[in-house]
Amino acid sequence: MTTREMHDRMANAIRFLSMDAVEKANSGHPGLPMGAADIATVLFTRFLSYDPHSPNWADRDRFVLSAGHGSMLLYSLLYLTGYEDIDLDQIKNFRQLGWRTAGHPEWGHAAGIETTTGPLGQGLANSVGMALAERILNARFGDDLVDHHTYVLAGDGCLMEGISQEGISLAGHLKLNKLVVIWDDNNISIDGAISLSDSTDQCKRFEASGWNTLRIDGHDPEAIADALDAAKKSDRPTLIAAKTTIGFGAPSKAGTNKVHGSPLGAEEISGARKALGWDSEPFVVPSDVLDAWRVAGLRAAKERREWEKRLAAADAETRGEFERRMRGDLPEGFDQAIIDYKKKLSEDKPKVATRKSSEMALEVINAVVPETIGGSADLTGSNNTKTSQTNPIKPGDYTGRYVYYGIREHGMAAAMNGLTLHGGIIPYGGTFLTFSDYARPSMRLASLMGIRSIFVMTHDSIGLGEDGPTHQPVEHLAALRAIPNHNVMRPADAVEAAECWQIALESTKTPSTLALTRQNLPALRVQHTAENLCAKGAYELAPASKDAQVSIFATGSEVEIAVAARAELEKRGIATRVVSVPCFELFEAQSAEYRAGIIGKAPVRMAIEAGIRQGWDAIIGSDGLFVGMNGFGASGRIEDLYKHFGITAEAAVAAVEKRLTKA
Amino acid sequence: MTTREMHDRMANAIRFLSMDAVEKANSGHPGLPMGAADIATVLFTRFLSYDPHSPNWADRDRFVLSAGHGSMLLYSLLYLTGYEDIDLDQIKNFRQLGWRTAGHPEWGHAAGIETTTGPLGQGLANSVGMALAERILNARFGDDLVDHHTYVLAGDGCLMEGISQEGISLAGHLKLNKLVVIWDDNNISIDGAISLSDSTDQCKRFEASGWNTLRIDGHDPEAIADALDAAKKSDRPTLIAAKTTIGFGAPSKAGTNKVHGSPLGAEEISGARKALGWDSEPFVVPSDVLDAWRVAGLRAAKERREWEKRLAAADAETRGEFERRMRGDLPEGFDQAIIDYKKKLSEDKPKVATRKSSEMALEVINAVVPETIGGSADLTGSNNTKTSQTNPIKPGDYTGRYVYYGIREHGMAAAMNGLTLHGGIIPYGGTFLTFSDYARPSMRLASLMGIRSIFVMTHDSIGLGEDGPTHQPVEHLAALRAIPNHNVMRPADAVEAAECWQIALESTKTPSTLALTRQNLPALRVQHTAENLCAKGAYELAPASKDAQVSIFATGSEVEIAVAARAELEKRGIATRVVSVPCFELFEAQSAEYRAGIIGKAPVRMAIEAGIRQGWDAIIGSDGLFVGMNGFGASGRIEDLYKHFGITAEAAVAAVEKRLTKA
Repeated sequence: MTTREMHDRMANAIRFLSMDAVEKANSGHPGLPMGAADIATVLFTRFLSYDPHSPNWADRDRFVLSAGHGSMLLYSLLYLTGYEDIDLDQIKNFRQLGWRTAGHPEWGHAAGIETTTGPLGQGLANSVGMALAERILNARFGDDLVDHHTYVLAGDGCLMEGISQEGISLAGHLKLNKLVVIWDDNNISIDGAISLSDSTDQCKRFEASGWNTLRIDGHDPEAIADALDAAKKSDRPTLIAAKTTIGFGAPSKAGTNKVHGSPLGAEEISGARKALGWDSEPFVVPSDVLDAWRVAGLRAAKERREWEKRLAAADAETRGEFERRMRGDLPEGFDQAIIDYKKKLSEDKPKVATRKSSEMALEVINAVVPETIGGSADLTGSNNTKTSQTNPIKPGDYTGRYVYYGIREHGMAAAMNGLTLHGGIIPYGGTFLTFSDYARPSMRLASLMGIRSIFVMTHDSIGLGEDGPTHQPVEHLAALRAIPNHNVMRPADAVEAAECWQIALESTKTPSTLALTRQNLPALRVQHTAENLCAKGAYELAPASKDAQVSIFATGSEVEIAVAARAELEKRGIATRVVSVPCFELFEAQSAEYRAGIIGKAPVRMAIEAGIRQGWDAIIGSDGLFVGMNGFGASGRIEDLYKHFGITAEAAVAAVEKRLTKA
Repeated sequence: MTTREMHDRMANAIRFLSMDAVEKANSGHPGLPMGAADIATVLFTRFLSYDPHSPNWADRDRFVLSAGHGSMLLYSLLYLTGYEDIDLDQIKNFRQLGWRTAGHPEWGHAAGIETTTGPLGQGLANSVGMALAERILNARFGDDLVDHHTYVLAGDGCLMEGISQEGISLAGHLKLNKLVVIWDDNNISIDGAISLSDSTDQCKRFEASGWNTLRIDGHDPEAIADALDAAKKSDRPTLIAAKTTIGFGAPSKAGTNKVHGSPLGAEEISGARKALGWDSEPFVVPSDVLDAWRVAGLRAAKERREWEKRLAAADAETRGEFERRMRGDLPEGFDQAIIDYKKKLSEDKPKVATRKSSEMALEVINAVVPETIGGSADLTGSNNTKTSQTNPIKPGDYTGRYVYYGIREHGMAAAMNGLTLHGGIIPYGGTFLTFSDYARPSMRLASLMGIRSIFVMTHDSIGLGEDGPTHQPVEHLAALRAIPNHNVMRPADAVEAAECWQIALESTKTPSTLALTRQNLPALRVQHTAENLCAKGAYELAPASKDAQVSIFATGSEVEIAVAARAELEKRGIATRVVSVPCFELFEAQSAEYRAGIIGKAPVRMAIEAGIRQGWDAIIGSDGLFVGMNGFGASGRIEDLYKHFGITAEAAVAAVEKRLTKA
């Protein structure tokens, strides 16, 4: 049992490491680490199950610092408890280029950082996915292998962001009782007192979504411990509203917004040293305090070893399957299943929407990849994300494989990231492509982290018809392609859909978005290839009859138009080839030779895509012909719309002829 | 007083027009109009102040159909009450190309549509801005001229979207008691019962944010009326939870998700005709029912005329100012104030961050344009959005001109759209450019509607430094440029910042985003011009000493780098010009001649921008040189980052020399 005095000194170690690091960097956020140090100390010394020497232990408790600007809290904890990745040099080089201790916690920089946070509310919503992953894997592998908690430290900003409501209401609905959110209730945001902009009773709000709530003094270690004890016994997720003083210990700035996001300055830090009785030099933690922290870091080592024994004692199949899933490897036989399925497709030649061919591919995938967890933001029948294998996950029953995420695109994407980050699960979730805008901040974080979240975005153009311009994506392909490390794939038929799914599942370090049609499309890939042609991003679908005068590049539903235009141009004696471009990002990653070969030397290059031109110039050149959209869509029947906006084979042929006449 | 029987028949008129229109279109959402018909009938016949014959009456009550998929409810009401824009032909051509009755209500298609809805939650969040606009204008012009309510019909989807929490908590905090949200509580979403995905106690949730709440039977006209009466007396915003049956009247499908988003089919409609005792042919409203509706439409005409008398009786200055604001015209003297200010800048040559020069411009603007309402999503000191003229708006005191929006980027953008749509106000609001992702769905709607919302996005590149890649926009300029009808402006110095602000204020049909730096930039426009050079999107800032070998295009903070590179290249005998490109969209709108002249004929074209390349090929060609980002940023000092990512004058010079050597 830690004495109160030792608790205080251990918490002060966090406070001074944070103050000193921010001061040295001349940049950063000391207020939160100082205010939340007591909470973190109790959590990390008495509750959290983790092992700094085996940081990726699958059954560890997860800790998510949703208020990511308080990164020095986390770095201090990782250093103090003995994580190798974060030594004192890392702390001293806080926020410097090339060091692990980035301004905000970056997943992948160091073990112990469970997710990238900073954009507010994201960590909280990730944690819903993590807590759900725990329950799903528990349902499959039992208490012996999966039985842990997810703890979140969230700030006022996290709770004000709308995404928090999506996460809270989903977690409450699903009764994720092993999720514990501690709200650093310090009454301060950047602009000043919270009362400038909010007067929400947060406990009441959480209770409205089925949460257990507790209010405590966030500087009272026993109150913190009692609350965490109570939270662990709850049958519902728990919010602990912990009243704290931001910048606790700073003599003149504590409790104000001055301590939030700037170095305190030498004088204030010196005052804090006096006020808190801390006489160590900057970055020096007294050895007895550091020892106490290191001992705390060893607390769960025995628990971890016992877990390893249980894993070792499990039957070989269970152990193998658990380890495979946690490694993120796909099951053996996955590739062959896709190849067999593609072969069948090349015979069947189905004329279906790519949202349907996505479902057909998923039916194959979900049969051989048990770790996929599907879902949709209340568009299940439209996104075609549910297959015969995916029973619903329900409150208290996590044996299913399908999440009814509700009308919560943003919360869905963030929860999916949490499912992925937890390990053992490959999540995919659907909405309309236009609503990728709602989910975008989380989709970006998936890219930044480099994780396998798979976004199924149907109704991918004006082709959705009557719902009109609010629902018709025109700029979304370009906007998503703009995100680094994000494979935006737009298959042209059922074979390409299968290949895109294969790529998405095999891309362990890149999230994917599949853009899929509402309308039916013909089979275009009728020659079976075992090779995944989409994996090169672009490939020649139809060659020209002789030296090509025209190269037409197209994606998804417009490949059909390109093929029709080619037929007509060839009929008129104009040698034309068609290149299908299912994924810009993968095409860019190819060798210069491959790219040059695919782009080709035809004097006329044209792109056809029912979206805006932005991005296409890299392939067709700024003098290339473009058949697509240059503004918002309209409400109407699909055939009227394609004609109205001039996205037809006739328009393509006319544009080529005009260009050839001019030349 | 309408009898219950007449009420029912009037409500049934909405139901059958909706059923018939969806059936004829073979597309659409009959469930909501049928379920909410009683609510709408009571609201439009007994409460809402509006005049179909003077639909833009400034002091009308606003009605927002946040659940925009129920568009036939609104179109039915507009037709029945006698709005000229929506006649029976419009109803019969529901969802057809070229007609006003789009799949979702489109602002600008017809009077009476107060905002574009469909993306869920947006209308609700718009309404917060509308209700706030009413209070702000009331504070300025008094009860005589501004005294109306804002009514919203929202569905479960609106309430599940995170944006609703941002709107609800802001409205509750600001005590917008003339805002009344009626929740069509029908227990059904697309996937099925709401219980699949949510179990939130919505009344409790709204109460947690300071709302008055009432629960009623949404099919009981007197209960609806009593609730609306009570709402009008509330000192807080009111939620009326109205329990309804989706698809009320459909014999076998009512109360299920089958009635939500598809035509009912002939048999079901025939059954509904029997069940509801409606024997009219499709699209025919019995004349006594239509008469009753038309009489209801005349209800407020007298009130409107009295208001006009009060306006006419107001002193000339007040009247003139009110009318000017409602027209959206800028005050006389605005242009001259900008010109004078630019002249001063060309003398002062301030070296400041563009976020600061934006503030300086706003200081000038806010002094002459009293209708600007500033704000920030809790980054006031970072976004530099507050000037000496803008006192805070507080709960119950709306005399100020600044909104502390809280950490609610999405809610802010949607509320800004509501402020704009209400009329009489020009809103601008700030956050970091990277968080434009959070606000994006509302920013898109501003573009789709073509309204003057002005987004102030600071910390616009890796130049923000230590906060790292979560906070560093790299793809955001490209992603925002992708949105049609959206002026993304990135000024290079204080003069350009002033010009960009002038453009933003003068663009009444296009929203603007200003991308602004955290770091200081030198004055580059030192020759005063009265002409707004930024208005052409791109202009030659520095000519080459002779026929240019190199054209360098740059924006914002990288124009300084371009100018330095030019100096070095010229020193080495390589004639180089620099083109500043503050706005792609405006440049695209110029004549082909102007564009060709600005792009020029230099054999080497280079762009410098601390973002991704996407979009630049249109200016520099796919073989142009690009100095910028090709992935996410990093946490570090600005000088380290620019060097690390190779965005320097030296790197630019080296790339040019390499290209020239090769050629």
